[in-house]
Amino acid sequence: MLKYQQIALKIEKYIESNNLQQGDKLPVLETLMAQFGVSKSTIMKSLDLLEKKGAVFQVRGSGIYVRRNKRKGYISLLSDQGFKKDLEDYQITSKVLQLDIRKATEEIAKNLNMEIGAEVYHVTRIRYINGQTLCFEESYYNKSIVPYLNNEIATESIFHYIKEALGLKIGFSDMFMNIGKLTEEEAGYLGLPTGSPKLSTESIFYLTNGQPFDFSKVTYNYEQSQFFVQGNGDLYNFQ
Amino acid sequence: MLKYQQIALKIEKYIESNNLQQGDKLPVLETLMAQFGVSKSTIMKSLDLLEKKGAVFQVRGSGIYVRRNKRKGYISLLSDQGFKKDLEDYQITSKVLQLDIRKATEEIAKNLNMEIGAEVYHVTRIRYINGQTLCFEESYYNKSIVPYLNNEIATESIFHYIKEALGLKIGFSDMFMNIGKLTEEEAGYLGLPTGSPKLSTESIFYLTNGQPFDFSKVTYNYEQSQFFVQGNGDLYNFQ
Repeated sequence: MLKYQQIALKIEKYIESNNLQQGDKLPVLETLMAQFGVSKSTIMKSLDLLEKKGAVFQVRGSGIYVRRNKRKGYISLLSDQGFKKDLEDYQITSKVLQLDIRKATEEIAKNLNMEIGAEVYHVTRIRYINGQTLCFEESYYNKSIVPYLNNEIATESIFHYIKEALGLKIGFSDMFMNIGKLTEEEAGYLGLPTGSPKLSTESIFYLTNGQPFDFSKVTYNYEQSQFFVQGNGDLYNFQ
Repeated sequence: MLKYQQIALKIEKYIESNNLQQGDKLPVLETLMAQFGVSKSTIMKSLDLLEKKGAVFQVRGSGIYVRRNKRKGYISLLSDQGFKKDLEDYQITSKVLQLDIRKATEEIAKNLNMEIGAEVYHVTRIRYINGQTLCFEESYYNKSIVPYLNNEIATESIFHYIKEALGLKIGFSDMFMNIGKLTEEEAGYLGLPTGSPKLSTESIFYLTNGQPFDFSKVTYNYEQSQFFVQGNGDLYNFQ
């Protein structure tokens, strides 16, 4: 982790341990520089990172303020698939249904920007939150980027493995959402009546070099589906 | 609009008019500087803005690439409530059901960080996409920030009015999502059977100074609910 990322983490911990609330003002730059023993440019990079992450907002000519409007039980829609961070009070477990190597269909090849017929890891899992079904997940990983997966890894966090064991850097993602009704098969996985409401997502995850490595389709149990999403003003003021 | 914002817009238009695709490389910095007649620092600010907005991604030591994985018919979940930009091929209209001034309840006061009993504009609308119901929306605006609204404004884009007529700058937003079943009242508004799947959102929109001004509850017609959400790597690598 780079220096400014370490400092950003420390500032986040400072916010948590001091139980700062939405709108609370952080110390001025000079104080933060002294407190963490770093240069102005490092502190500014740390704060930019925290702003992107939705943990603070900066008001020109005024200061840096805490952004922390969470609701209990709401999951960040865009967080790591492992949910580890946002669900501290919750127990997330996974059951692997299938793990095999397949040849990419046209749909998979298109979403992973690879050749039709090239190899992908195919993983289906049911994920549980506090023992309740949270979602049914079907994922495809480009095998030339993720050369090895097994049941043990898939039972834990695949993303953690990709980052820590394979040393890959995740760059960004695209998610497409639909609302619909559970099919009989999905209802069976989630333990709900056929025709119940569902949130379905298709996500593509890219490395920092822009290469897609994971194409995942997830069907959520509506009874457990509480998500939060943070937006920033560039979306509203710049069109 | 500031210089770097203007240039960012021009780069976006350049991407569109040249029909650049996901992964296509943009010209190098020097070429962009010459092409738009601006300094390196301005171009870099423009590119940072476009990266935040999810229009490009930067690969260290390699260059700037286009990010453009859209699917037809998918609405940006976090865009302006006016939907104008992302729905170019679609006709969005609104019917105002109610527009009145009310006193903030505890729930409203909490979300808008104002006193209970202080005045808010209360607006309910049905929004249509190509003549089909898209959503039922109930919004509350802090009247001390948005001092005037009328039917004509609410029939068009309230956000456009807030930005252009009132000159306010929208900073960021928090959105909370649930999946559920339509109540009889909601089903009536949307023209769907009671109990149909629904996406419900509660959003709080803030000015750049951190002051919340709009608290909105939206119930979407699941048949028209196709959304995309872009994520960036700070969410995945930094926890």
